[in-house]
Amino acid sequence: MLAPEDRERVYAWIDEHFQEFLDDLVAYARVPTIGAEHRAEREGAEATARLLEKYGMAARTLETDGGPPVVLAESRADPSRPTIALYNHYDVQPVDPLDEWQHDPFDPIVQDGKLFARGVADIKGNTVAQALAAKAIREITGSLPVNLRFFVEGEEEIASPHLLSFAEAHPDLFRADAATIEAGGVDFDGTPQISMGSKGILYVELRVRTADVDQHSSYAAILPNPAWRLVAALQTLRNRRGKILIPGFYENVPTPSEEELSYLRKISFKPQEFRKVYGVTEVLGGRTRLAKLVSLTYNPTCNIDGLYAGYVGEGVKTINPAHARAKVDFRLVPGQRPADVLEKLKVHLAANGFSDVEVVPLGAFEPAATPIGSHIGQTLIRACQEVYGCDPQVMPWLGGSSSTWYFTRVGTPAAIGPGVGYAGSKYHAPNEHIRLEDARRGARAWAAMILLF
Amino acid sequence: MLAPEDRERVYAWIDEHFQEFLDDLVAYARVPTIGAEHRAEREGAEATARLLEKYGMAARTLETDGGPPVVLAESRADPSRPTIALYNHYDVQPVDPLDEWQHDPFDPIVQDGKLFARGVADIKGNTVAQALAAKAIREITGSLPVNLRFFVEGEEEIASPHLLSFAEAHPDLFRADAATIEAGGVDFDGTPQISMGSKGILYVELRVRTADVDQHSSYAAILPNPAWRLVAALQTLRNRRGKILIPGFYENVPTPSEEELSYLRKISFKPQEFRKVYGVTEVLGGRTRLAKLVSLTYNPTCNIDGLYAGYVGEGVKTINPAHARAKVDFRLVPGQRPADVLEKLKVHLAANGFSDVEVVPLGAFEPAATPIGSHIGQTLIRACQEVYGCDPQVMPWLGGSSSTWYFTRVGTPAAIGPGVGYAGSKYHAPNEHIRLEDARRGARAWAAMILLF
Repeated sequence: MLAPEDRERVYAWIDEHFQEFLDDLVAYARVPTIGAEHRAEREGAEATARLLEKYGMAARTLETDGGPPVVLAESRADPSRPTIALYNHYDVQPVDPLDEWQHDPFDPIVQDGKLFARGVADIKGNTVAQALAAKAIREITGSLPVNLRFFVEGEEEIASPHLLSFAEAHPDLFRADAATIEAGGVDFDGTPQISMGSKGILYVELRVRTADVDQHSSYAAILPNPAWRLVAALQTLRNRRGKILIPGFYENVPTPSEEELSYLRKISFKPQEFRKVYGVTEVLGGRTRLAKLVSLTYNPTCNIDGLYAGYVGEGVKTINPAHARAKVDFRLVPGQRPADVLEKLKVHLAANGFSDVEVVPLGAFEPAATPIGSHIGQTLIRACQEVYGCDPQVMPWLGGSSSTWYFTRVGTPAAIGPGVGYAGSKYHAPNEHIRLEDARRGARAWAAMILLF
Repeated sequence: MLAPEDRERVYAWIDEHFQEFLDDLVAYARVPTIGAEHRAEREGAEATARLLEKYGMAARTLETDGGPPVVLAESRADPSRPTIALYNHYDVQPVDPLDEWQHDPFDPIVQDGKLFARGVADIKGNTVAQALAAKAIREITGSLPVNLRFFVEGEEEIASPHLLSFAEAHPDLFRADAATIEAGGVDFDGTPQISMGSKGILYVELRVRTADVDQHSSYAAILPNPAWRLVAALQTLRNRRGKILIPGFYENVPTPSEEELSYLRKISFKPQEFRKVYGVTEVLGGRTRLAKLVSLTYNPTCNIDGLYAGYVGEGVKTINPAHARAKVDFRLVPGQRPADVLEKLKVHLAANGFSDVEVVPLGAFEPAATPIGSHIGQTLIRACQEVYGCDPQVMPWLGGSSSTWYFTRVGTPAAIGPGVGYAGSKYHAPNEHIRLEDARRGARAWAAMILLF
């Protein structure tokens, strides 16, 4: 392992060459790769390959079965050394509402030490930072201590509809000694964050139709009402305290280990922020801060995302609606499987007399987690300590979804490390940006991870 | 009472002067008195007064407290004789969707024995038919056997928001020996229909707000969800068989008398029509035709007219919504009161822990009914038998709402008699029309009612 003073030389190189990072990210962020619009997909893949070639990787472009290509860029230093896969994506979120942007989202601009453009935080900035880290190590030490495999896909923001077939066709590309999945960043206090996986999700629409057309509501005494059916069906799914009543739903749901609890205690979790930011009437999940954080992390959920039936405009319209529907998402913890929950949901509804409630799956992500004590987990923690000078906040998994499972499913330990963003980066929102100082430290942290692995 | 052969002379006079009816109705229907748009209100009131003056009534226009005027037109033949109030309205429904009309809705046209225009069936045609009937009697017999009081308001189609204050300011105008409330018509088989009142309605919106803005659904484990609250609150209102669970809701709800049942048995009620017309999956309310009809008539309802929360577009959006709402209507039978049900609903929700569910009343009509055996009921039945040559179908009350209660509340027996429309008149819809033969018979039936009272 490189001596601490040599690692410092690597970090210094990164600082000295930060303008190169900035120029390359600006060019990369100009490519308007909006995933939802399938925009600039080829151009995005080519720009990714070109970028990684420039940083010394051997890049190639692999076709998916119907989606945009995956870019693979590798530095095969030595087959006897471990391999780290670095998962990122070249697509970005849509830019609407466009009028809330203070600048053109695809014309990057530096202002007050921040770089504004769609995708700089999620996740193009991270790809460039990881490439810069790799180049810094090679420039200072002559070679990389590990094999790196950049894996950059083009449909992450639309839930990677072609990634499973790609993973099944190319399992070796997902096998590595460790994988990093995109990246996070630092919180508002500057503390770096690590997540050892992410929750999964099953998103369904429940549909009830009792007629071809709406009827006058005076017929309600003898005609079925789909909204009542939907309400009754929903009410069987969950009790008032949020416990999910689908038999078997909680099978394999983990409870926090002592080690995980010790990390959770260090999280700067501020429940009162939910009141400030969202104006929520209450924050549930237990009396203490830790209890709420454990609930947030370990409780799978059944959430109503949307409800619709009949007349929803202003004032009065007296109808018995023809159909009703609910959008429902289940956030799943490691141990649960979306397909299994879907099946249990269907069985539960049928068993409760709701075979008239159609269950339409609209999307799914598998949950995945790697132990904090794993080599990648501990390496990321030490890298953060070295670069940020403090302990990182380590979550057993993210509340949202990620592509982590595509790697863990073939046995690759995976984690979501620090990165170039911060809690105020406005991910997915107008005026997405990164702070240049965060990017500089993020690149150093990636170099540290590679050097300490 | 006039001898049968003299009554025939009255009916013959109506037939001979039918063109006068048609010309006057065409002129009246040209006035675009769309209630919801407060359009042509003064013009409509003046046209009504002018029309009734032309038919021999003494008309005057009375101001309401903030709404359009009420037109009163009376023929005070003899104070010792009974008085019949004839309630109608000069406003009409909106005309959208305009592109579904085959002709300009305010440029009446006769085609294939039908008169097409907005308002000819609901209810301007009836006002002119009643005026024609009165004139026919006077022309043939020299005087009217009763005092008639035409009462024509201008806001019926928007639920008469100023009628209660008007009724409280002018109670004598609602007192009479009988009142007819607008009119119905004949069914598809040509059988005339009489309703001895109408159900009432309470229309509310239930609102739950748990935050200022939507939140990412990964927070659902610890943040409240307004859709779940709404579903749970709704579920307490009604069991799966439609029984309403609000304590005291069924107080004073009547069951059908033997006399009412004997009339209900004669109704040409065809439950299978609901399947044909609306494509409903089932028709509830009991196994037999009569059981279904009794359910339809005597069961008050709690109906969900609309449901809304969060994301209701295509596909997936993962949010915990900030607010949710339901539109709910209660159809009430005579004996129930909207204000009482509203109060019981609020008490019930609070008692079940749902004080966070806001109850916003959006509209109400009082139920009202007069016994079939009443003088006005029996007179209408005999009038139908004489003019249509068959027994009318007599319902204890309509499933929809009407202004009947404004008369019954001061002790005036009231009924909804036959009229100029038929089951295919497209009330409230594009291409509203009446069949000229129905109008001719409707006018005769009104003459018969006056003569037989």
